[in-house]
Amino acid sequence: MKKLIRGLDKFRETYVDSHQELLGQLAHSQTPRVLFITCSDSRVAPNLITDTDVGELFVIRNAGNIIPPYGAANGGEGGTIEYAINALNIEQIVICGHSNCGAMKGLLKLNKLQKDMPLVYDWLKHAESTRRMVQETYPHYEGDDLIEVLVAENVLIQIDNLKTYPIIRSRLHQGRLKIYAWIYNVETGKVLAYDARTHTYIPPEGQLLDDDDTVRSYVSCGDNTAVVPI
Amino acid sequence: MKKLIRGLDKFRETYVDSHQELLGQLAHSQTPRVLFITCSDSRVAPNLITDTDVGELFVIRNAGNIIPPYGAANGGEGGTIEYAINALNIEQIVICGHSNCGAMKGLLKLNKLQKDMPLVYDWLKHAESTRRMVQETYPHYEGDDLIEVLVAENVLIQIDNLKTYPIIRSRLHQGRLKIYAWIYNVETGKVLAYDARTHTYIPPEGQLLDDDDTVRSYVSCGDNTAVVPI
Amino acid sequence: MKKLIRGLDKFRETYVDSHQELLGQLAHSQTPRVLFITCSDSRVAPNLITDTDVGELFVIRNAGNIIPPYGAANGGEGGTIEYAINALNIEQIVICGHSNCGAMKGLLKLNKLQKDMPLVYDWLKHAESTRRMVQETYPHYEGDDLIEVLVAENVLIQIDNLKTYPIIRSRLHQGRLKIYAWIYNVETGKVLAYDARTHTYIPPEGQLLDDDDTVRSYVSCGDNTAVVPI
Amino acid sequence: MKKLIRGLDKFRETYVDSHQELLGQLAHSQTPRVLFITCSDSRVAPNLITDTDVGELFVIRNAGNIIPPYGAANGGEGGTIEYAINALNIEQIVICGHSNCGAMKGLLKLNKLQKDMPLVYDWLKHAESTRRMVQETYPHYEGDDLIEVLVAENVLIQIDNLKTYPIIRSRLHQGRLKIYAWIYNVETGKVLAYDARTHTYIPPEGQLLDDDDTVRSYVSCGDNTAVVPI
Amino acid sequence: MKKLIRGLDKFRETYVDSHQELLGQLAHSQTPRVLFITCSDSRVAPNLITDTDVGELFVIRNAGNIIPPYGAANGGEGGTIEYAINALNIEQIVICGHSNCGAMKGLLKLNKLQKDMPLVYDWLKHAESTRRMVQETYPHYEGDDLIEVLVAENVLIQIDNLKTYPIIRSRLHQGRLKIYAWIYNVETGKVLAYDARTHTYIPPEGQLLDDDDTVRSYVSCGDNTAVVPI
Amino acid sequence: MKKLIRGLDKFRETYVDSHQELLGQLAHSQTPRVLFITCSDSRVAPNLITDTDVGELFVIRNAGNIIPPYGAANGGEGGTIEYAINALNIEQIVICGHSNCGAMKGLLKLNKLQKDMPLVYDWLKHAESTRRMVQETYPHYEGDDLIEVLVAENVLIQIDNLKTYPIIRSRLHQGRLKIYAWIYNVETGKVLAYDARTHTYIPPEGQLLDDDDTVRSYVSCGDNTAVVPI
Ligand SMILES: [Zn+2]
Ligand SMILES: [Zn+2]
Ligand SMILES: [Zn+2]
Ligand SMILES: [Zn+2]
Ligand SMILES: [Zn+2]
Ligand SMILES: [Zn+2]
Repeated sequence: MKKLIRGLDKFRETYVDSHQELLGQLAHSQTPRVLFITCSDSRVAPNLITDTDVGELFVIRNAGNIIPPYGAANGGEGGTIEYAINALNIEQIVICGHSNCGAMKGLLKLNKLQKDMPLVYDWLKHAESTRRMVQETYPHYEGDDLIEVLVAENVLIQIDNLKTYPIIRSRLHQGRLKIYAWIYNVETGKVLAYDARTHTYIPPEGQLLDDDDTVRSYVSCGDNTAVVPI
Repeated sequence: MKKLIRGLDKFRETYVDSHQELLGQLAHSQTPRVLFITCSDSRVAPNLITDTDVGELFVIRNAGNIIPPYGAANGGEGGTIEYAINALNIEQIVICGHSNCGAMKGLLKLNKLQKDMPLVYDWLKHAESTRRMVQETYPHYEGDDLIEVLVAENVLIQIDNLKTYPIIRSRLHQGRLKIYAWIYNVETGKVLAYDARTHTYIPPEGQLLDDDDTVRSYVSCGDNTAVVPI
Repeated sequence: MKKLIRGLDKFRETYVDSHQELLGQLAHSQTPRVLFITCSDSRVAPNLITDTDVGELFVIRNAGNIIPPYGAANGGEGGTIEYAINALNIEQIVICGHSNCGAMKGLLKLNKLQKDMPLVYDWLKHAESTRRMVQETYPHYEGDDLIEVLVAENVLIQIDNLKTYPIIRSRLHQGRLKIYAWIYNVETGKVLAYDARTHTYIPPEGQLLDDDDTVRSYVSCGDNTAVVPI
Repeated sequence: MKKLIRGLDKFRETYVDSHQELLGQLAHSQTPRVLFITCSDSRVAPNLITDTDVGELFVIRNAGNIIPPYGAANGGEGGTIEYAINALNIEQIVICGHSNCGAMKGLLKLNKLQKDMPLVYDWLKHAESTRRMVQETYPHYEGDDLIEVLVAENVLIQIDNLKTYPIIRSRLHQGRLKIYAWIYNVETGKVLAYDARTHTYIPPEGQLLDDDDTVRSYVSCGDNTAVVPI
Repeated sequence: MKKLIRGLDKFRETYVDSHQELLGQLAHSQTPRVLFITCSDSRVAPNLITDTDVGELFVIRNAGNIIPPYGAANGGEGGTIEYAINALNIEQIVICGHSNCGAMKGLLKLNKLQKDMPLVYDWLKHAESTRRMVQETYPHYEGDDLIEVLVAENVLIQIDNLKTYPIIRSRLHQGRLKIYAWIYNVETGKVLAYDARTHTYIPPEGQLLDDDDTVRSYVSCGDNTAVVPI
Repeated sequence: MKKLIRGLDKFRETYVDSHQELLGQLAHSQTPRVLFITCSDSRVAPNLITDTDVGELFVIRNAGNIIPPYGAANGGEGGTIEYAINALNIEQIVICGHSNCGAMKGLLKLNKLQKDMPLVYDWLKHAESTRRMVQETYPHYEGDDLIEVLVAENVLIQIDNLKTYPIIRSRLHQGRLKIYAWIYNVETGKVLAYDARTHTYIPPEGQLLDDDDTVRSYVSCGDNTAVVPI
């Protein structure tokens, strides 16, 4: 705790002193451009890994970066997402999983958790789609490979869950929202981003074209153009 | 999004290059010493404001840094807390509110939210104790003063909610857990910490005594020594 | 009731007498090939409109052919879907909306329903994504046109909800399940089927190619090929 | 799927062509006289077995024709029932179980289901009254006899559940609603109806007296005449 | 509080001293013969009004003597009922309403309660069947007459809710349980008991025949004799 | 049942006759001064053990005198508490556990209960904090000693749960509510009261000072004086 308190001092002496104008602008409102959803894991530090300042990332963090489908949970995820999109008009969402994720490991020994950590068990049941799909589709995987595929598929499944929220669905349909799938490697500090065209995770620089709009997102307006009943 | 992707590059070139040993140690496990619960607000950046490295803070973030009482919600809060204390053996929790919090403002216009942002409304109902207590106890407050007291009381109320969780209750009773109440000022970058002796929020340096154990926590073992039935 | 009882007689005298062999085969087990999800509306009669015999369609019917996302409801929908796919190994799902649907009309006057028909209100809240998306995306629609687009979008949204179920997600990923979106016109008796390539509803004959596999479904394995992390 | 699509054609060519007037009348509203609640089982086809046209039966179907008590579930059952009685003013309900029902068989191996088909397990827990009562009252039954009594008792128990719904309770009390218990034999195509006087299931023709009102229902107004406090 | 503490003294000096043998027998177990369910109202004191000793009545008390249907609530009612019947083998249940009941009055102004006392509102929604049935069946009642009929019908409706619990259903079917409906008048101290034969509440002495078994209960085994499928 | 009916007679002949004035005063309203929360156990008779008349105690009774945290349950506890404090303006709450409590014994064999008494199991899960804390803090206790400490700690934990209710929190903060922890010994008829100063349960007479206000309560206004942010 003493270390933390000394850190507070250092923050004021360095960052605050050099960002007076920014902090002044942010005193009475925030205008973040990205909703960043990631794991509670201590090795994933959103502002550090994206080299962003205060005011840039609106952040949701829980074990496993899980977003239960609309209506399935009454915790902080739903209301915070709605606030981000509806009140702050954020137009970009990143869901960022990470290597060596304890929550994904937990999925592989759910039954043991039920007795020892019942609340972790209840929470991970929201990722049952991840567990079941990976175990049935990749029966030959094990060890680190299995964790790796769990992490990768889990992010995509949480994005599908995100799409069941009314505000998300509506904004996607109107072309006003993009959702990105990332995986952060806690050892190398590198990020891979999902590329919908190739169904692979690739370095995000590879998606960087001329302007922001052409970064290839997992879900964008193109996916859901208006239905035209005959 | 391009800015974010360039930030990833910068992070690797600077932070990762200079912290190779740390990242290597963290590759296969984490050993954070603090569970840091704070608002999703973009102006609150836990690692920045405490000047901590990756691996130090296990973080939960939602709108309003609200922790519903045990059993009241099935979102990420409960399972993530249990994982932090039970699996990672974290012994210190900080709940950190902040000035100008949009969630606290939302508490003052709940009825309007019910129609426009139903999920935000549902979520903020978990902080009904904060709303009701402040409005009935401070009927003469308004404007920034009212928000300020909402923020301050809300952190203490969430700590009382925290105490209803089995793992929290048990560890507190055994003297193996301390919980701290903080308020972060988004304009000045300063933190105030709750001082249980004086029932005030004061600069945390004022609580810093000779060693870590003597930092005055909101709730510690002293609160709950064993009951001795006659 | 007398009419119904006389109908039972007529059924035995005609259908049963002429389908003795079929009924004998079905006496101890069923092997339906399609899970047919449709509205409770009396004008939608699955076996009649598809000219199918007993034993062919496993049927779920509720007001509005709504499938709440995984975990969002504990009514019959989830368990019945799981039973159909997991126990009966059904590989084709049709969700069939219909013209002039009372449930879709109800979505347009939800607030009035809250007082008069609270359970209908609660149920239709599971289709809030349909209501919100259509009202925000088609603000200029009204009357029959508005109902028509509600019906059409609702079926697609329910299919997205379906995809959040573990067994559905897993089977889709393995290429063992196809989902079709239909709209039945109660006046003309005609069905339109969603065509994913053109984002329109078209007569299903237009999708009939050489063999069953090439009927274009809303969701099939192609949508979800394996993720290949680098 | 091709078979289904061809069936649609056949339906239009035969049924639609010969029922143009009926379909025209039904184009803008429905006036079904019966709410028919039955199992999703493919062998139970309400319109076929009662030889009824489109427009006659408002239908709810789920695995096991289970109606959870009022307040116990938030799936489609409650809202659809309320819509049928409150909006459509239906005055007759049939709950129709059937021989060889997979859901009833599932009740006998619930524990096994918990792991393999968790949603089926959760759903069948709503029929725990059926399971417990039958196993404790008929301990000597087994095989087909046991399934038969489960099916028979289950329908009566679901009717008792129905009676806990506000709209059902109110209409019963006013003598404006009758509820019938049926069992359909998938092999013989015969239906038996519960006779409240003799506590047995008998051929419904035996209940057919001079007019519709005298068909003996399981629950009618007589059951609940006004309480007269002294 | 001082009055209460002095009452404790008086209890020991009078009751305890004169019931030493009874208290000794009860020291290590209880064998109550009746489950008594009544309102929390201070004017209803089960042991006083039935002149019973400690050890005779197992008691559930909440506002309005409401028993939500099986599965509709996770409060103390369900578990306590199950414990009474399953663990203590109690064979008689009394549900006792009372005149001038505040909860029943609350049913008549539910909407006002929603804002001021949200938890009371939520609780009374479990008695929506009472409210709706009485308001629709007795539209001409008002004032004390209306409260009186609410109280009387509410007890019967809660008994119907009781019947949806697995243990209750099973024991009723086996003829091992009887349920009685009482109304206690807080002004006169008199009780009326429901008489199923005449559908009226009458003085319970009128039901007292030769032996205990012949007291006419609301629900007993006769109601649910075994179904005999042909 | 005959014994009960005769008790009703005796109550009228003795108590009612000698308390005509009191019953008259209570005919149209109640003004109890204490909310008394205790176990359903037949050996705990609130009015008897406190020698109080009708009209004095507003009573909640369930198995184990458990109060789930705010939002964790939708049974009678929450609404009844809110009614007591908000509508009746009660300012004193007693939670009274008791020796030899079957619910506390049940906590020690929860897993066995899950199968045999699932509703008891579900209910006792609300006291998981009691179970876990006692088993982890008093690992060397067993038999009667273990039950005794479970009972004693459980009452304190339920009081912490009480504090999460909005109305409780607000009234405590305003100094308008006191909460007392009692344990009743079913064999000796004696009560012990928790003394917050010494963290022990002592005879309540020892807390009786000059006037009512000085009885030492477990939780009172002193606990929660206003927060003064700097
Ligand atoms: Zn993780
Ligand atoms: Zn905030
Ligand atoms: Zn419809
Ligand atoms: Zn079936
Ligand atoms: Zn009452
Ligand atoms: Zn007890």
